[in-house]
Amino acid sequence: MTEQSKTNPSQPRHSRDVAQWDMETDVAIVGFGGAGGCAAIEAADAGSEVIIFELASASGGSTAMSSAEIYMGGSGGTRVQQACGFDDSTEDMFTYMMMSAGPQADEVKIRNYCENSAAHFDWLVDLGVPFKDSFHEERAIMCLTDDCLLYTGSEKAYPFVEHAKPCPRGHNLYVEGDNGGPLFMKIVTANVDKRDHISVEYETRALTLIIDDVGAVVGLVIRKDQKEINVRARQGVILCAGGFNMNEEMVQKYAPMLTQGTEPIGNPGDTGSGIQMGMSVGGAAINMHEGFISIPYYPPASMTFGIAINDKAQRFINEDVYHARLGHAALQQQGDRLYFIVTVDDYGSYEKMNFLGASIAGTGESVTELEDELGLRKGSLQQTIDLYNEDCVTGEDSQYHKASQWLKPLEAPLVALDITPGRGCFVPWFTLGGLDTLPTGQVVDPQRQIIPGLYAAGRTACGIVRRAEGYSSGMSVGDATFSGRLAGKQAASSTKAA
Amino acid sequence: MTEQSKTNPSQPRHSRDVAQWDMETDVAIVGFGGAGGCAAIEAADAGSEVIIFELASASGGSTAMSSAEIYMGGSGGTRVQQACGFDDSTEDMFTYMMMSAGPQADEVKIRNYCENSAAHFDWLVDLGVPFKDSFHEERAIMCLTDDCLLYTGSEKAYPFVEHAKPCPRGHNLYVEGDNGGPLFMKIVTANVDKRDHISVEYETRALTLIIDDVGAVVGLVIRKDQKEINVRARQGVILCAGGFNMNEEMVQKYAPMLTQGTEPIGNPGDTGSGIQMGMSVGGAAINMHEGFISIPYYPPASMTFGIAINDKAQRFINEDVYHARLGHAALQQQGDRLYFIVTVDDYGSYEKMNFLGASIAGTGESVTELEDELGLRKGSLQQTIDLYNEDCVTGEDSQYHKASQWLKPLEAPLVALDITPGRGCFVPWFTLGGLDTLPTGQVVDPQRQIIPGLYAAGRTACGIVRRAEGYSSGMSVGDATFSGRLAGKQAASSTKAA
Repeated sequence: MTEQSKTNPSQPRHSRDVAQWDMETDVAIVGFGGAGGCAAIEAADAGSEVIIFELASASGGSTAMSSAEIYMGGSGGTRVQQACGFDDSTEDMFTYMMMSAGPQADEVKIRNYCENSAAHFDWLVDLGVPFKDSFHEERAIMCLTDDCLLYTGSEKAYPFVEHAKPCPRGHNLYVEGDNGGPLFMKIVTANVDKRDHISVEYETRALTLIIDDVGAVVGLVIRKDQKEINVRARQGVILCAGGFNMNEEMVQKYAPMLTQGTEPIGNPGDTGSGIQMGMSVGGAAINMHEGFISIPYYPPASMTFGIAINDKAQRFINEDVYHARLGHAALQQQGDRLYFIVTVDDYGSYEKMNFLGASIAGTGESVTELEDELGLRKGSLQQTIDLYNEDCVTGEDSQYHKASQWLKPLEAPLVALDITPGRGCFVPWFTLGGLDTLPTGQVVDPQRQIIPGLYAAGRTACGIVRRAEGYSSGMSVGDATFSGRLAGKQAASSTKAA
Repeated sequence: MTEQSKTNPSQPRHSRDVAQWDMETDVAIVGFGGAGGCAAIEAADAGSEVIIFELASASGGSTAMSSAEIYMGGSGGTRVQQACGFDDSTEDMFTYMMMSAGPQADEVKIRNYCENSAAHFDWLVDLGVPFKDSFHEERAIMCLTDDCLLYTGSEKAYPFVEHAKPCPRGHNLYVEGDNGGPLFMKIVTANVDKRDHISVEYETRALTLIIDDVGAVVGLVIRKDQKEINVRARQGVILCAGGFNMNEEMVQKYAPMLTQGTEPIGNPGDTGSGIQMGMSVGGAAINMHEGFISIPYYPPASMTFGIAINDKAQRFINEDVYHARLGHAALQQQGDRLYFIVTVDDYGSYEKMNFLGASIAGTGESVTELEDELGLRKGSLQQTIDLYNEDCVTGEDSQYHKASQWLKPLEAPLVALDITPGRGCFVPWFTLGGLDTLPTGQVVDPQRQIIPGLYAAGRTACGIVRRAEGYSSGMSVGDATFSGRLAGKQAASSTKAA
């Protein structure tokens, strides 16, 4: 075995091979994004000495690159929800999130998240994160005003709305435009910097974990200034190193479905090294096949009046769902093409407002003309539109249950956008698999036995969000910050190795 | 760490903790099904001393429970293919299998399989496995006559047929009825028994692997007669312990999609312990989310004249595909119900011949009556059947490309079967994830570095078969026997530890 392979994230180092500890701390944290920052603050506030190791030359991670919408609610509502007149029950939030996660839901983790989400809002406010008591009513992917509260998922759409009372839970920071991420991380970083017990080592790569004879994690090996350094962590290591978006080999191996996307969303450090380090000491990696993948066909919100079809001219989902739920369903379709059909009126400001960048595949003064331009089977789109338009008149989408507010007959002239992945439109994606953890952030093995001294949070762990079909914006930063805090607290409460 | 956790398959034992070797061999094999048996034969024939450890009191594994159809071809054809007039090219077989495996295909492994598949047939014949030079023409899930060759996948169906010349590659043993599995394992077992260098330990549980200081696998711990025994394996350990069908926790964690099935197919030993042992020493487990899951709507073959629909009365696949491809597509549908619609004539002998056990959801003297009975949106099934019947007349299925031989207008009276999983019909499933291996059977870590001394074959490895969408009957036993042989040869060619 070569020297190199000893510092491969998939091979831990044994403490007996550590000649000396070059650095010591109570809690070592890998990665300074939203999860790592929040973990450090909680661990320090509980009395532990903390070092954060960050690959980049500044804090931020993928949180800083995001909109930093944060999915919160329950317990009667956050301050903002209440001020905007929304009384959000924990049970409704729980039901929605359980449906969102699907058969792979971690019920205990989701329950804990929902029960403590309103308190998490207060904690963020105490850090100095600003939220305005205002509601952004328009259907949007992100809030481009400084308003706070918005619907960011499929809460008002079928089938969720039939089981859980909808409530907006996306909390956007009090800042103009899509600038929440940098502001959020600036505030978290200021909080880290002002705590004496936390130090940050930038431009430092975490190479591998260090374990003792019984398999407990007692430290990690880092590389800084071309030197390998053995770091002892008396209370353990928290992995907050992001997902594996940027590791093509891992994506191909674990989540080949995502290769249909066009744009990995995340920072260059999302190489899966944290997940690999956890696996190397026996941690279970779960839900590795799943990811967020989306066809973001709105804004403008008026696109919701349209219909998505496959190349058989069949609809396949209620078009008022969150864009990733539509994206996932689209990717399940047999055939070569996917279109989004909308009236010229509703297409309106699409050119100006869209993120998708889909090209126009056809236009028609009649449905027959559009069928022709799209190469659809003659009569097939007419059938679909006939049924749909009849349903629009009665106000009930008998087939896919799009909410009545979005039902309006599709009258020519019509526009068809080509929303086929790989044909020019933007199909963002990121991974949703990671280390299996308890709600405390403790990493577990395939038998769910705790691996002593090892914690994970944010995307390195497999959290509350489990699939594109049930994603809502704000769930990732919500999960990262919340799970980071819990891991920090748990590590700080553990016995310090002598 | 307790004594118990030391013999947990997810925690290897270190050789320094082995007080003495209780048993020694060159090659240790875990599991005596098709993979383990073939591995043992090859290793012994290459001069190694072999011990097979089998949990049950007899050989067999899941191979003995299967039909033991074996997917083989290429190189101009096996003896049977040639005798039946089929000239099978390696390239056509390769193209078909690559399409079958999808984005997660292991091209190198599939290439190797296709290039050596006809020779594998000869090897099996040399073992004494009997194949009759006859072709079973009827579309079937398994051959109930003693004929050999049959189409067992989607070779003749869209889209495969557009890219690879179809050829039947399922080889059924020369035995009446669905009795190939027991006969096959009887022959393999006789071959094992007559080799002096192979011994078999039945009723023996493999507990965990033993590794040395550099992480190489040097043996394993077994339990026999309530005693833990340390077994030294000078040339390594081959894991042939099946998949993880029978481990509910692993299925929920890794492949929750499969929980929609009703019946795990496999033997009680398919607990994932082999996969866990491999992971415990750094082996990568891949494709863990995938499985075979099927709605076996034929035989009788006449069912293929029917159409499968969702609860929007939309078709969703060409109905001449392999049953698991239809099953997979069915499971992607939005909605609560799935139906299979067929004429009363074609329904014919369904009651007698079917495996599915689906109940009749409705019958109709007219399409309108059937829509009514099924609670479908008025006019929706009529639309679908109108288009479909028009296409039957022209002989081209414009929407889903079912082959023209299966196109015949659906004329009332019609029968609708309820093929919704969970409503009475049989939905068999099994796992398709496992340890990542090279074609040689060598287990690799997430960086595809070889783990010295560790091999895997059959379902414990992730082989040539990767998803329900592209499954063909015979691929599992084909893969198990072929990959077992390669692992046996590779282990036997390695240097014996001093």
